Amino acid sequence: MTHTPVWFMRQAGRSLPEYRAARGSGSILASIAQPDVAAEITLQPVRRYGVDAAILFSDIVVPVHAVGFGVEVEPGRGPVVAQPFRGAGDLARLRPLEPEVDLPYVAETVTLAVGELASFGVPLIGFAGAPFTVASYLVEGGPSRTFARTKSLMHTEPGLWAELLDRLADMSVAFLGAQVAAGAAAVQLFDSWAGCLSPSDYERFVLPTTRRVLAEIGRTGVPTILFGVGTGELLPLMATAGADVVGVDWRVPLHEARRRVGPGCAVQGNLDPALCLAPFDLVAAEARSVLEAAGAEPGHVFNLGHGVLPETDPGILGALVDLVHTEGRAGVSR
Amino acid sequence: MTHTPVWFMRQAGRSLPEYRAARGSGSILASIAQPDVAAEITLQPVRRYGVDAAILFSDIVVPVHAVGFGVEVEPGRGPVVAQPFRGAGDLARLRPLEPEVDLPYVAETVTLAVGELASFGVPLIGFAGAPFTVASYLVEGGPSRTFARTKSLMHTEPGLWAELLDRLADMSVAFLGAQVAAGAAAVQLFDSWAGCLSPSDYERFVLPTTRRVLAEIGRTGVPTILFGVGTGELLPLMATAGADVVGVDWRVPLHEARRRVGPGCAVQGNLDPALCLAPFDLVAAEARSVLEAAGAEPGHVFNLGHGVLPETDPGILGALVDLVHTEGRAGVSR
Repeated sequence: MTHTPVWFMRQAGRSLPEYRAARGSGSILASIAQPDVAAEITLQPVRRYGVDAAILFSDIVVPVHAVGFGVEVEPGRGPVVAQPFRGAGDLARLRPLEPEVDLPYVAETVTLAVGELASFGVPLIGFAGAPFTVASYLVEGGPSRTFARTKSLMHTEPGLWAELLDRLADMSVAFLGAQVAAGAAAVQLFDSWAGCLSPSDYERFVLPTTRRVLAEIGRTGVPTILFGVGTGELLPLMATAGADVVGVDWRVPLHEARRRVGPGCAVQGNLDPALCLAPFDLVAAEARSVLEAAGAEPGHVFNLGHGVLPETDPGILGALVDLVHTEGRAGVSR
Repeated sequence: MTHTPVWFMRQAGRSLPEYRAARGSGSILASIAQPDVAAEITLQPVRRYGVDAAILFSDIVVPVHAVGFGVEVEPGRGPVVAQPFRGAGDLARLRPLEPEVDLPYVAETVTLAVGELASFGVPLIGFAGAPFTVASYLVEGGPSRTFARTKSLMHTEPGLWAELLDRLADMSVAFLGAQVAAGAAAVQLFDSWAGCLSPSDYERFVLPTTRRVLAEIGRTGVPTILFGVGTGELLPLMATAGADVVGVDWRVPLHEARRRVGPGCAVQGNLDPALCLAPFDLVAAEARSVLEAAGAEPGHVFNLGHGVLPETDPGILGALVDLVHTEGRAGVSR
């Protein structure tokens, strides 16, 4: 690949009219469980935007939902948990994931999508939630601004916290393994909320388990991406987690992100998705700044700094892909 | 002062039973408008914790509420705006603040509180919202995760954005000036959500106005503090805004924060308020880490990295003050 590759987190989703048509009004977890629907949604942004990768239409809570922990995804709010994780007794509610039994639809979706993507010459990126971020939903009971219960648990019951993360790590590995076995060519681990932690808490309570997930999935041979929001101070630690690529939000200019992750990792990012609501000349200027900050060396995957916002005009994203393909200077050659 | 000084953001408030008793069930803006109630609440944490400063019981939306923009503070949610700022026509809704007419109760509260604080030998810190953070509420209509409308406005209508910030800056200066005239010995400018911005957006769209507010209030001679959450990448810029002290959250270790702000600014922070929900031995260990990271040189004001969480046990904060007074190595001598 000679240009800078580009795809968008949440490209398969809320901002596309064809997505809303395919999804209908049911729950997102129900749509994910229908391989024909989920594969169609996965393909839509490839057809419309010409992005260089598809990302599986799924959700980070799919595995915990599938083992019956009692998680739903509320529109406009996010994952909510009827009975949050409160103590050792709740570990039993997180039995090992058996992908072929618990979520056969995921491998079916991957197989369908990979088959259709062949004609575009575009790979599929699989994904899972990282143990910390999934744990935060289970412990808080839903989205949180402070992550107070989660932080309290890790500090006051570090043994229980480690057990919780270990179970979630096993689930992430099984979930990602099923996607890779069905044809996913790369995987992204979403540790979306890790940036709420201090570097010392991240290093002590999160990094070891993240490292294990990436090591185990890395053995399959597919490239791995580790992403979180607001992780500026964590980048040097995240760079040691074993991922090939570290995703970065717009808060850290990419030249600085590259300095922090070092030469062993590529970087992915980092246009502010909020700026994609502006007219295209402004988006183009910002995109050029991102490309310039990334520099001429390979090892930059263009993306937003977080997911596409629902109110984004799809025309803007299409023009953005064209701009990156035309003006991006260097590519990662994989 | 020979020890490290300590106070807590939101020390006057939700976690204290005597606060809930004094406040009753009315709106927070109504309580702020009663000088006897507001002064009492301002004093409570000084009596209970022995902190080295009181901070005025107020809210960052008090000035825009007082000029009739139509802002309320919803319990558990935060500021909400009935008719958000949408265009140039809304500038007229932000007439200049006349403190003695629009919010005479603020100076009365300051006068009452300063009188009572004299017997404790403790200064009062006044505060205001910084123009960007107040603008974000007016533009978004309430709390936001993405600040998409605000970012869109600054990029697409930079002239209007500058006018909006200028009006809010004038209000902040007038609001802080009234507090200083009534006896506040220092002021903090809360740019709580500035950390949602990239460094280049912060530098272009926010810093100039912040600098003006700090310059104008600095002329009164009182020390100034500039605070925001998630500002790791912004610290070198914030250090040029003209504040004497830059507040830092727990994401950036204080030795690194000191490096980024340089020798001209003191730092304030940065214990994670979520950790104050843990038993005291854990809180003590974290507080010692903060003191150690701050180092032996003067120029560190101990605080949390953001406001006290409502569920915090006041006993923990009291013990924390004692620990900082006993073990803090250096003080700022002002």
